[in-house]
This record gives sequence, structure tokens and C-alpha cells, in this order.
Amino acid sequence: MTFKELLEKNSIEAWEIYLPHISIDCVVFGFHEGSLKVLILKMKETELWGLPGGYVLKEEDLKTAAGRILEARTGAKDVYLQQFRVFGETNRSEAFFDHLPEGSFFKQRFISVGFYALVDYSKVQPVVDELSTDCVWRCIDTIPELMMDHQFILEQAQRTLRKQLVHKPIGYNLLPDKFTMPELQRLYEIILNKKLNRGNFYRKILRYDILVKLDETRKGGAHKAPDLYSFDLERYNTALKNGLNEVW
Amino acid sequence: MTFKELLEKNSIEAWEIYLPHISIDCVVFGFHEGSLKVLILKMKETELWGLPGGYVLKEEDLKTAAGRILEARTGAKDVYLQQFRVFGETNRSEAFFDHLPEGSFFKQRFISVGFYALVDYSKVQPVVDELSTDCVWRCIDTIPELMMDHQFILEQAQRTLRKQLVHKPIGYNLLPDKFTMPELQRLYEIILNKKLNRGNFYRKILRYDILVKLDETRKGGAHKAPDLYSFDLERYNTALKNGLNEVW
Repeated sequence: MTFKELLEKNSIEAWEIYLPHISIDCVVFGFHEGSLKVLILKMKETELWGLPGGYVLKEEDLKTAAGRILEARTGAKDVYLQQFRVFGETNRSEAFFDHLPEGSFFKQRFISVGFYALVDYSKVQPVVDELSTDCVWRCIDTIPELMMDHQFILEQAQRTLRKQLVHKPIGYNLLPDKFTMPELQRLYEIILNKKLNRGNFYRKILRYDILVKLDETRKGGAHKAPDLYSFDLERYNTALKNGLNEVW
Repeated sequence: MTFKELLEKNSIEAWEIYLPHISIDCVVFGFHEGSLKVLILKMKETELWGLPGGYVLKEEDLKTAAGRILEARTGAKDVYLQQFRVFGETNRSEAFFDHLPEGSFFKQRFISVGFYALVDYSKVQPVVDELSTDCVWRCIDTIPELMMDHQFILEQAQRTLRKQLVHKPIGYNLLPDKFTMPELQRLYEIILNKKLNRGNFYRKILRYDILVKLDETRKGGAHKAPDLYSFDLERYNTALKNGLNEVW
């Protein structure tokens, strides 16, 4: 079945089960070997890549829908998921489905709600759907051309992450349970896209009082074994809820 | 015409001109006599109040729709308007229109995009629409019971404002062109809902480098006439775009 035939077939069911005009696009971030990765899909019969996305069932909460869409693509349940912006310009998606008949569900105007997810890279198994040939992790600085306004959606998710570093902790869901200070610093540097001074970073991050220094070190390297840390989850979650910084 | 009859009449046109299932709710903030005010509407034939809201025309960008809805209710053009969250739970609005026939546009499930606006209190003329009897400013701490999930929407807008004080300047659109330092401090205190130390406030706000000290003072009081300030709009807008704080 061609991509077009598949969409035509799916359109009938889509009208029955989904809310029209509202879609969800997910920017899924993972952290692996010192770099920030994003999950992207390659659409069938085109050279274009896109973000994983989907629609909202008629009787389904928006956030539940985002969780369901993400689980289908990653196998991961209960991931950290946050809406960050709505993409509501006219003609943001219509042209992509230009070749479909007028009444097609997919050819309608869609206002898309962007969610970002922070997932444990090692726990995710990317899964293709029937409309795509590949579902892979790609480094954030080597993302190929994306379809529709997905490049813009990705940039906005990055921007949100960067802003939220000011008042939210980050790292849980992205780092393994035990990590070194340089690994945590590297995560901040990648999100902020700049080098941080090591001493300042240590001082600030310790002041947040969300880390526990473990009674073990990472062995195996040529250098002095670095200390391992983990997050104090109770304090981490409190900071996530109430915000980190008392700037004012 | 009763409220119900009016809605039944409007439903036919609504199906023709608006995208179904998507609505907009606006939290309009104004600052007057040292207190933060919110614009609310009283619905016809009920004791309930609500936030100004509306729908998106089929060929209209989401943000344009929010501006149009706001202008209709306030007479103000080009106000500072930001989307802040989507409200996508099932049954958030359906019960309110329970008495309408099944096919009514208004009785459908709506996912609502919340926008907040910061407006110059003195330049706004609240206007009732055909579904409401009153459109008034109310102090944020004396808001009456609101319909649907509007209380939650209002709280989320306040929360957003509070968070954004960490990395965005505020005051332009809310304060008159010339203001005193205590007036600006009062605005921050109201949004943060806490008292700030005067010396610290001065120091921090001056460090942002967005204020111009004018060569005049406010006359007429019994005390020493306080200095007047205004915003350096170029720097203010740069800070709005790039963020204020380099916490990391």
C-alpha cells in the first residue's frame, strides 16, 4: 500500500475516533555519551524526517494522548512530559497533505500542541509506525531537514529547556541513577550551548541541595576515580514543583 | 431572546466560520492604584463570571484570533499577549452547555488555549458582548466564583507571570510611562505575592539596566518628591527577547 493509500484508508477511522483540527507533536530528548539526542522519524516515500506526533481521541485528556503517542514510539511508560507551546499558524501542515482528497482527515487545518519529553536513553526502544521507515535518535546538532514546521517546534522546545534551567532542576530522567559531576555539568552545557566554569557550576548546583554524594567512585579510568552522585528525589521533586531560584 | 436561544441561533454560524473543538481564554491583567486587576465577564442569566474568550476563525492564525477576541472586549489594539498553557482535559466545558441540543457548536468538547495579556489599565474600555451583562476589572484577590475551569486558568496565568519575573522584565504595558521606584516595586510584590526589601529591589532592578532615571520628580505629596523613571524601550525589548538572567 502506498503512503497515500494508507492515509486515505486511515482517514475514515480517524474522523470517527479523533478530535479533528488538534494534533500533538513530541520533542523527545535523551542524553547519551555526552550529547543531547532527539527522536525523529523518517516518513515513507519521502526523504523528509519529522517529530513523532499524533492525534487526540475524542474522550481522552490531552496529556494522556501525548503519553500514549510517546509510548507507541518508544515503549516507555510514564515519561516526564510537558506541554510547552501551541503551534497555531494557518497552513503549517496543510501543504504536506496537499495530494490527499479534500475530505481527508489529515488534510484539515491542525493546531498542534508541542510536548517535550525527557527520557532515559537506555530504556527507550524506538519503534517505527506504519507511516514511517525509521525511528532513530539523532544528535541535536546533526538533525536533518524536518517536514512542516517541525524544525521550529524543535527549536522552541530547546529554548524552553534552556529557560527552565533557571528555575527547574534537570537531569533525572536524562542521566543514569549514578553520575559524576562532570557528566551533570556536560548536560547543562549542552542545553545552554556554552561552556561553564567548573568551580561555579559545583558551587551553584550544590547550593540547590538536590544532590546526594554517594559513598562510591567511578572505577576504571586512568585518572583519579571521580565521585558519584545521585539525586535526592524528594528534594528534586519539591524543587521541580516550587522552582529553584529565589531571584526576587 | 434568552441565553439558550441566542446560543442556538449562533451555533449555525459558528459551525460555518470557526474551527470546532478549539477555544481561546484570555487572562487580562491591568495594574491600578497599587493592585493587580483582572478583566472578567458576567454571563447572562447566571450568577457566574468568566474570563473573556472566543473561537478561532477557519483561516486565522491562533495569535491573531486572541488579539481579535481581546480587542472586542477591551477596545485595545496590539496589546502584549502571550500563550501560556493549553487546557485539554475532557469535560472541562461540556457541562456548562448541557442544556443545549447535541449538535450545538458550543456543546462540543473544547481544548482551550490560554493567553495572558498585560494592558494599560487607563487605555482599556471593557465592553460586554451579547452573552454577558457585565465586563469589569476586579482585584485579583477578590475574584468571584468563575465558571468551568476558569479559576484554574487564572491561577496558571498568575503562576506563569511569577515564573517569568525570573527571566523577563515586566512593567511596560502595566505602568504609566513615568513611574516611581516604589510603584515598580509594588508591581513586583503583587505578582510575587510577597514583600521585597527595598534596597535589594533597587539594586537588582538597576542591574538589569532597563530603566532611565528622568530629570523630574512626582510633585504634590507631603513627603520629598520621589524620582520618576521610565523604561529604556530598546533595552527592555532586548531583555524581553533574550532573557534577563544569566543564572548559569
